[in-house]
Amino acid sequence: MLKVLTVSEVLDIFKNAKEVDNEKVDINNALGRVLSEDVVSRENLPGFKRSSVDGYALISNDTYLCSESMPAMLKNKGSIVIGERPEYSINEGECVYIPTGAMLPDGADAVAMIEDCEELGDEVLVNKPASRWENVVFEDDDVKAGEVVIKKGTVIEDRHIAVLAGLGVTNINVKRKVKATVISTGDELISPYEERQIPKVRDINGYFLTAALIKDGCDAKYKGISKDNEEELFELVDKSLEESDIVFISGGSSAGNRDFTINIMERLGEVLFHGIAIKPGKPTLMAKVGEKFIVGLPGHPLSCAVVYRFIMSELIDRMLGRIRTDNSLILKMGENYHKAKGREEYLPVKIEGGFAYPIYAKSSAISVMAKCDGFIKIERDLEGIVNEQEVKIMR
Amino acid sequence: MLKVLTVSEVLDIFKNAKEVDNEKVDINNALGRVLSEDVVSRENLPGFKRSSVDGYALISNDTYLCSESMPAMLKNKGSIVIGERPEYSINEGECVYIPTGAMLPDGADAVAMIEDCEELGDEVLVNKPASRWENVVFEDDDVKAGEVVIKKGTVIEDRHIAVLAGLGVTNINVKRKVKATVISTGDELISPYEERQIPKVRDINGYFLTAALIKDGCDAKYKGISKDNEEELFELVDKSLEESDIVFISGGSSAGNRDFTINIMERLGEVLFHGIAIKPGKPTLMAKVGEKFIVGLPGHPLSCAVVYRFIMSELIDRMLGRIRTDNSLILKMGENYHKAKGREEYLPVKIEGGFAYPIYAKSSAISVMAKCDGFIKIERDLEGIVNEQEVKIMR
Repeated sequence: MLKVLTVSEVLDIFKNAKEVDNEKVDINNALGRVLSEDVVSRENLPGFKRSSVDGYALISNDTYLCSESMPAMLKNKGSIVIGERPEYSINEGECVYIPTGAMLPDGADAVAMIEDCEELGDEVLVNKPASRWENVVFEDDDVKAGEVVIKKGTVIEDRHIAVLAGLGVTNINVKRKVKATVISTGDELISPYEERQIPKVRDINGYFLTAALIKDGCDAKYKGISKDNEEELFELVDKSLEESDIVFISGGSSAGNRDFTINIMERLGEVLFHGIAIKPGKPTLMAKVGEKFIVGLPGHPLSCAVVYRFIMSELIDRMLGRIRTDNSLILKMGENYHKAKGREEYLPVKIEGGFAYPIYAKSSAISVMAKCDGFIKIERDLEGIVNEQEVKIMR
Repeated sequence: MLKVLTVSEVLDIFKNAKEVDNEKVDINNALGRVLSEDVVSRENLPGFKRSSVDGYALISNDTYLCSESMPAMLKNKGSIVIGERPEYSINEGECVYIPTGAMLPDGADAVAMIEDCEELGDEVLVNKPASRWENVVFEDDDVKAGEVVIKKGTVIEDRHIAVLAGLGVTNINVKRKVKATVISTGDELISPYEERQIPKVRDINGYFLTAALIKDGCDAKYKGISKDNEEELFELVDKSLEESDIVFISGGSSAGNRDFTINIMERLGEVLFHGIAIKPGKPTLMAKVGEKFIVGLPGHPLSCAVVYRFIMSELIDRMLGRIRTDNSLILKMGENYHKAKGREEYLPVKIEGGFAYPIYAKSSAISVMAKCDGFIKIERDLEGIVNEQEVKIMR
């Protein structure tokens, strides 16, 4: 019996995938990695009381009821340098110059802005009352010790590296990369590095998948083209499983090699499904071998790309515990599009003048891949999209 | 005279930036690189006539007026194998089995779908007329020789690598990476790898900028923290210019070191501006030294991030001739936001439940960087955004 699952049934299977182990990385190598535990601040930030303006640190009570006609007169004790502990503490009737970001001296409980003050010999005239803690940033105003600053599952971006550096966290726990091997099959395939031999076709998916996996944060290896021969492919898959979490067989679900891909899967593990109710990409095979996976992908480049991007990338998410960032775009459709009921469809679209236009092409056409700005998912039971309808473009 | 420019004046200056040189890369190393010339196909794709279905290759005239009750009877010559030149040519009254993607044999001008045919001994009964070229993909249906398949300035993604492999283009001309050096300045700074010494603060921008530049496709080097000393910084900038296209001095526009950053710029080249009418990020300095640049960025992390992301990254675009992909998101505002007139503002926002909420924080707060899902640009003359207004979130 051939087992064809819906997309949501396939995603349900992925929920049981085991997360890969953790490893430590330095923040200099953390870009794009997935955080495997919450980053909790060990300390308060800024960690000391500091001034948020250039002005004079003073005791607020000393400025009570002062005004331009009746300024408070305070003794100027000098100035504080940013990044250094104040040499002065402030007593009643005293003040000290403090630049933005510098540490508030002991005794002071407010900063009067420089615009409201005048220096006069050894004294400073303050023209406006300062309330208690005015222009003062507290020890824990930015981050509190014990606070979760970055959540488990976050993909580390430049901005997270900023926060980590600021907190003195130079080493973080991340998921190790998912290891993937890509094998292309098909007697009609030749390498793009070879001379063209019509009617052979160049391997596209091997290169596409390897690049897509690397872009998706995996450690991906391309093992070349295997002949349509069960034993040769069996050996290659078996060996690749030793060093990979997932082995992708591109073209492994195509007419010529579908049967022996299934055989290989059955010899090594348990077949999970023989197809997905999705267009394009229906002939997708998948098996589990212990905690590892073998995936047979369609040979047609567009089908292969859709199945990777919208199905298999979710498996990578699961194995990394990764929180996916929504990278979609809402636009209006530029024309009507008709679809047959019964299968979820991923329609390649081109964006022009702020509208989305369907790209009509067979899944064997590779030029679609160059033109395609994204995909629109059309649910199973819908019969299409009408002109000017708002659509979500997934990229 | 201090020269403060508007954002569009700054971007105008960038138009004169010289593009960096080209270099060749193998498609295996092309991900994320910027194409420096159009990729023009040297050949037609698929390059031969092929069948788009499983069926029988035949001469369409032989099926003229046939029907289920009066099928055309054709002699079955065998079958064609995908990826191999047909052993047969088709004469009147003959046909041959052909799988999807296989090469059409000489003589044939159509393929009848397998569903419309019946094998009967050595003969095939065809129940439905096939019109001329039905189910046949032409030599140049996918790509025509001489066609531009990927445009100059495109950032190479996995899908482009698919197309390149398909066309046998294994080596492409790309822009060499822009070389950038990052120097942090400020006597109050310590390395995040050092023991905390209150009230010193850890260098954030050095790590942020290096990561942001790498993410943005640059070859970036972090040179550590320079003391607030004109000669020390001069030496470091001068030496860095030898090996960089752009030298970023983080904190170089801040109160303590602004003046000697300007001196260094004047000693080495020509100061382009002393500030940008933007919030946050106003105190940004920039100079030109031959075809190279020195940029003094604000020390406040959020200001530094905004100036890099929304201004300096455009300079990188120019130097690479890079076509920027719009990565923005349209959402509704979750509350009112009031802004002062006169400066273009980049407001950090958080996305929650499909709405955008402003993050209120001083530019000195680093926690904003962890929370910030993107920025909304509010034009100079606007006074804010109202609740439920649609906004474009740039990421």
